[in-house]
Amino acid sequence: MGIPENSNIKLRNKFKKGKRNLITDVPGVKVGQITKKDSNADIHTGVTTIIPREENVFENKTLAGTSVINGFGKSVGLIQIDELGTIETPIVMTNTFGVGTALNALTKYMLMNNPEIGVSTGTVNCIVTECNDGELNDIRGMHISEQDVLESIENASLDFDEGDVGSGTGMICMEMKGGIGSASRVVKFDGKEYTIGAILMSNFGMEGNLRIDGTLADKTYKKCNKPEQGSCIIIIATDIPLNERQLRRVAKRATVGLARTGSFLGNGSGDIAIAFSNGNTVPHFSDRCILDVKMFNDDKIDDIFEATAETVEECVISSLYHANTVVGIRDKKVLSLKETYNESVR
Amino acid sequence: MGIPENSNIKLRNKFKKGKRNLITDVPGVKVGQITKKDSNADIHTGVTTIIPREENVFENKTLAGTSVINGFGKSVGLIQIDELGTIETPIVMTNTFGVGTALNALTKYMLMNNPEIGVSTGTVNCIVTECNDGELNDIRGMHISEQDVLESIENASLDFDEGDVGSGTGMICMEMKGGIGSASRVVKFDGKEYTIGAILMSNFGMEGNLRIDGTLADKTYKKCNKPEQGSCIIIIATDIPLNERQLRRVAKRATVGLARTGSFLGNGSGDIAIAFSNGNTVPHFSDRCILDVKMFNDDKIDDIFEATAETVEECVISSLYHANTVVGIRDKKVLSLKETYNESVR
Amino acid sequence: MGIPENSNIKLRNKFKKGKRNLITDVPGVKVGQITKKDSNADIHTGVTTIIPREENVFENKTLAGTSVINGFGKSVGLIQIDELGTIETPIVMTNTFGVGTALNALTKYMLMNNPEIGVSTGTVNCIVTECNDGELNDIRGMHISEQDVLESIENASLDFDEGDVGSGTGMICMEMKGGIGSASRVVKFDGKEYTIGAILMSNFGMEGNLRIDGTLADKTYKKCNKPEQGSCIIIIATDIPLNERQLRRVAKRATVGLARTGSFLGNGSGDIAIAFSNGNTVPHFSDRCILDVKMFNDDKIDDIFEATAETVEECVISSLYHANTVVGIRDKKVLSLKETYNESVR
Amino acid sequence: MGIPENSNIKLRNKFKKGKRNLITDVPGVKVGQITKKDSNADIHTGVTTIIPREENVFENKTLAGTSVINGFGKSVGLIQIDELGTIETPIVMTNTFGVGTALNALTKYMLMNNPEIGVSTGTVNCIVTECNDGELNDIRGMHISEQDVLESIENASLDFDEGDVGSGTGMICMEMKGGIGSASRVVKFDGKEYTIGAILMSNFGMEGNLRIDGTLADKTYKKCNKPEQGSCIIIIATDIPLNERQLRRVAKRATVGLARTGSFLGNGSGDIAIAFSNGNTVPHFSDRCILDVKMFNDDKIDDIFEATAETVEECVISSLYHANTVVGIRDKKVLSLKETYNESVR
Repeated sequence: MGIPENSNIKLRNKFKKGKRNLITDVPGVKVGQITKKDSNADIHTGVTTIIPREENVFENKTLAGTSVINGFGKSVGLIQIDELGTIETPIVMTNTFGVGTALNALTKYMLMNNPEIGVSTGTVNCIVTECNDGELNDIRGMHISEQDVLESIENASLDFDEGDVGSGTGMICMEMKGGIGSASRVVKFDGKEYTIGAILMSNFGMEGNLRIDGTLADKTYKKCNKPEQGSCIIIIATDIPLNERQLRRVAKRATVGLARTGSFLGNGSGDIAIAFSNGNTVPHFSDRCILDVKMFNDDKIDDIFEATAETVEECVISSLYHANTVVGIRDKKVLSLKETYNESVR
Repeated sequence: MGIPENSNIKLRNKFKKGKRNLITDVPGVKVGQITKKDSNADIHTGVTTIIPREENVFENKTLAGTSVINGFGKSVGLIQIDELGTIETPIVMTNTFGVGTALNALTKYMLMNNPEIGVSTGTVNCIVTECNDGELNDIRGMHISEQDVLESIENASLDFDEGDVGSGTGMICMEMKGGIGSASRVVKFDGKEYTIGAILMSNFGMEGNLRIDGTLADKTYKKCNKPEQGSCIIIIATDIPLNERQLRRVAKRATVGLARTGSFLGNGSGDIAIAFSNGNTVPHFSDRCILDVKMFNDDKIDDIFEATAETVEECVISSLYHANTVVGIRDKKVLSLKETYNESVR
Repeated sequence: MGIPENSNIKLRNKFKKGKRNLITDVPGVKVGQITKKDSNADIHTGVTTIIPREENVFENKTLAGTSVINGFGKSVGLIQIDELGTIETPIVMTNTFGVGTALNALTKYMLMNNPEIGVSTGTVNCIVTECNDGELNDIRGMHISEQDVLESIENASLDFDEGDVGSGTGMICMEMKGGIGSASRVVKFDGKEYTIGAILMSNFGMEGNLRIDGTLADKTYKKCNKPEQGSCIIIIATDIPLNERQLRRVAKRATVGLARTGSFLGNGSGDIAIAFSNGNTVPHFSDRCILDVKMFNDDKIDDIFEATAETVEECVISSLYHANTVVGIRDKKVLSLKETYNESVR
Repeated sequence: MGIPENSNIKLRNKFKKGKRNLITDVPGVKVGQITKKDSNADIHTGVTTIIPREENVFENKTLAGTSVINGFGKSVGLIQIDELGTIETPIVMTNTFGVGTALNALTKYMLMNNPEIGVSTGTVNCIVTECNDGELNDIRGMHISEQDVLESIENASLDFDEGDVGSGTGMICMEMKGGIGSASRVVKFDGKEYTIGAILMSNFGMEGNLRIDGTLADKTYKKCNKPEQGSCIIIIATDIPLNERQLRRVAKRATVGLARTGSFLGNGSGDIAIAFSNGNTVPHFSDRCILDVKMFNDDKIDDIFEATAETVEECVISSLYHANTVVGIRDKKVLSLKETYNESVR
């Protein structure tokens, strides 16, 4: 959905938006979420899972690249993406102390659906990413269950909510309620339309730094005593047949989207981007040594870079736009964007 | 100098500006330039050199870190900075085809001043960076001489010009005349003031993408057929005793400054940042195995990151602000910022 | 222990061995292990944990560096080591599908011992490493429990076994029984003795490739149809006050030790090295912005590099030397080194 | 040529040697050299140039990957290889202070053969690599001329000498006379034969560390007071259609070859590997956005890795085997391998 047309938030865009303006505009991509809210138990957390393609992704790997924008983070699975250039599981987002459980659940899901793993073939590289929701959520309570993760995979679909939902339930962005944001853009190459979509979990930034369409939202702009904390996980999907080096380049452009919204990549913000393309396939089982793939002409890649920056920028603003004011653990109250700037951002 | 107070360009700043608002506010840092302009010979190029410290820098190395923001570039010397964490020569900026000559000149300068190099000690790692000024300059003519480079070192001082001077003479930024920009900020730690300064050579960006204080300067914002080209070299200096890992983190924040001014890190833009601190010294000759150095508490580093972003942002705008309209090779005319947006940017 | 003097395996060493010839010769380092063997249930797995220092490591972080020699692996925690240069938890080694559970257990251990985590301070970066023991162990059964991991931490001590124990229980190295190996060396700088110790989990290599003291053990040397699989995790500890960049350089030299024993860094081998020094401390809580640390004079570092290579080489051979023949899942029998080359390697 | 069959140096090989046992067994690859020896003027230096393919390499780029094994080096051009995954010029090897002149010469060569560079298209990324030959050569005299570099390109052919020739003229390896070494191996995939070839310039290692077929050549093995110095440049060529990520993996395996011959990757040794495949082509000029390329099935890549290690190992030994005793500047005498170990290595 991103920012609806009738909002008075205006983000100028060079590129056409996708039909849903969600990452699921990329053919084959689905998103599932579990939201866990129980104020009595101080639970404000959840799981958001991205399914990268229609086919069994272990057997039909997508090419992928990563960008560790700021490595103050605990995401799992990036080392192997960098070495082999592929993704072979869904991508799970959750809170920092939910990673172990999410890893167990995702492993079991993969074992269940691929009986050869660990017997006649090697293991599997599960991708689990995280942000720290401990300011609103009882993160020490480790409330994410394996069942939550499995359900997020099972309920994956083309439509999903943004804001304080899924893994974004307890997230804070520039001292306002952050969470899940998504958007997409359409680009045309060699006469054919392709889609670039992104989803992010916003949990970064310093109070007063928000920029809408690049412009500072606050009239004041002054030093803030509270350190930039949190993190931001950005997943970028496309059906353009980019190769793994090019996807790494695309992942790097997520930084531009973040910077335009007010991030300066603070010390405590584990900002990590993963970009994948299901327009290329690497088979897990193949007798052939030499495979046919596509790569993109780097000389024509600027549109992809600029559309990625634009998409990620909208994702951040959308995560704020859709979120609601929350009161969390230790009575911490975090206002929504709408309550913070009430006239201007309806 | 940066953007003067009486300009109607307003970049809000959180951090106090240094006395000169130049990289030379960092104690010990000096800048020298040679500008080569000869319209009859289609020469629009030059050299800008940064001297990193008062003392012999080969004998008293500064710690340093790099960030290859986009590696479509031909800078020399970064591999060894990454391995050893030090800089041991001045840093030269020039045009792409001037790198070989600049490397020869800088090598000779180092040999002259350090007779033990290549005899009783190893070689020397010269730092030469570059952007392509071939749209305005007869770059194929290779007009940079060794003498130019040596003079840029010799004339280094605390005051220097910005805009279409030195290595910035032939540079183009977002289809306006770019070039050299510089700025500085003062930060306070443990009761003591330190300075962060930057200088950059702006040669990046797509027409219509300029953002001033984050806000798009053009009313229109549409796809442009000309690819993003050029490059941007950013040198960041400080006297804060950061270590080499931390300087690498600082160099990475240059991206935020670029993004705020309209860069999306285009394919053809070789964006490279080098950050060094002369607040730490690594001796070339020492009998001791274990050395005392300072490092910074990463938990307190946010001010450094944010001030770096702010400084680099001002450098870009300042490089445009101070540049003049130029007509170059093949009658290419590039307007200054002032002539492009004439009312608003005096 | 490494290779005992009375063995007829002779590895020439330039450097003096530590007292125990184990990683625990580095002051403050301890190792704990849990071995899980139940042939009826096809269980051949375990946990090995390295405690990096005497003091609370979350409050007194050690400096650290990593080397992803071949990234076909699923280790957890490396991203943050690279960004911040520190380790703040014990390091757990286990099987690939035990990582999620080990991460949960280690998280709970850290929360228990540091009540401020997730409340008044951020989260914690747990280090969990892995190899695939699925050829001998029912890895799909996920038999590692949180209790196993906690016990491995609690039973940590100065003496520990090598071979088919702990996380090495089900590992295979060059088609012989691999597992845990350890060794140490003493080096002298500025008149003071320091120790370099290593522990590794050997699970790599192709049949027939073993080299003892660099020399091929097999008379034949021919192509093998079975792909190089498995992995190798190498943890290097020292009390030399190296900084994080230098520890990364040290971690890289683990490759030399592997290569000397016959590894060619096969595709499927997730070879990952982590080096840390408890000779430097980064406090978690400090009001000061600028900290005093030591770094090493890189010009004198060769002994450290060469001693590291020698130590890691001995670790590999020692892991084979101490291991016993095992019959595992699907009746897979893997001979020990002694049974494979029975005369020459007693 | 590598090590001839009738030598009493026996390096066991798993893989079939190429016809010439030189890098030029890879179809399209040629090597040219200029040797500069003038004992009266203390000149012992030269240039060795690798031509990567038959066709104009600027218009038909080869895919490529690099490995900075130890970054104490001053090679030029690697940043762009890493970003774009391609090589677009010949690769020049020379001495450290010859890099600037080689860069100028190579730039002029490229401009001459590609009139559109710097006019209607961007610049060009020249690859120049180096080792320090200052122990034998008057490196401060900067005796490499542009003409030398151009001649090395022009005289490129299928046959070339090894040992103390070309850029290897003044190099020292483990305190013996080093220089240029080359070898090749043949591998078969999907029923077709391909070649892996390498050439290296050996200038690394500590006295007494030489290993032949992995076995220490010296009976003694003791600490040496002279630091490991020098460097090693390794260029690996193949016609197997590997992609840029895979070529980076191949380049990394050069380390195994070095380690087997006695390198421990000493501090002062700038060890840098570049691997390229002319079995894939990236066109400089193309209107298409999406290109067809091949990639290799990583599951089958072990033979390539192991053959690379074997080839690089032979290159090192061959560089020593073919070199002659030299007396250089300051009367430094460096014995050949044959004179050092006179019986065993004829």
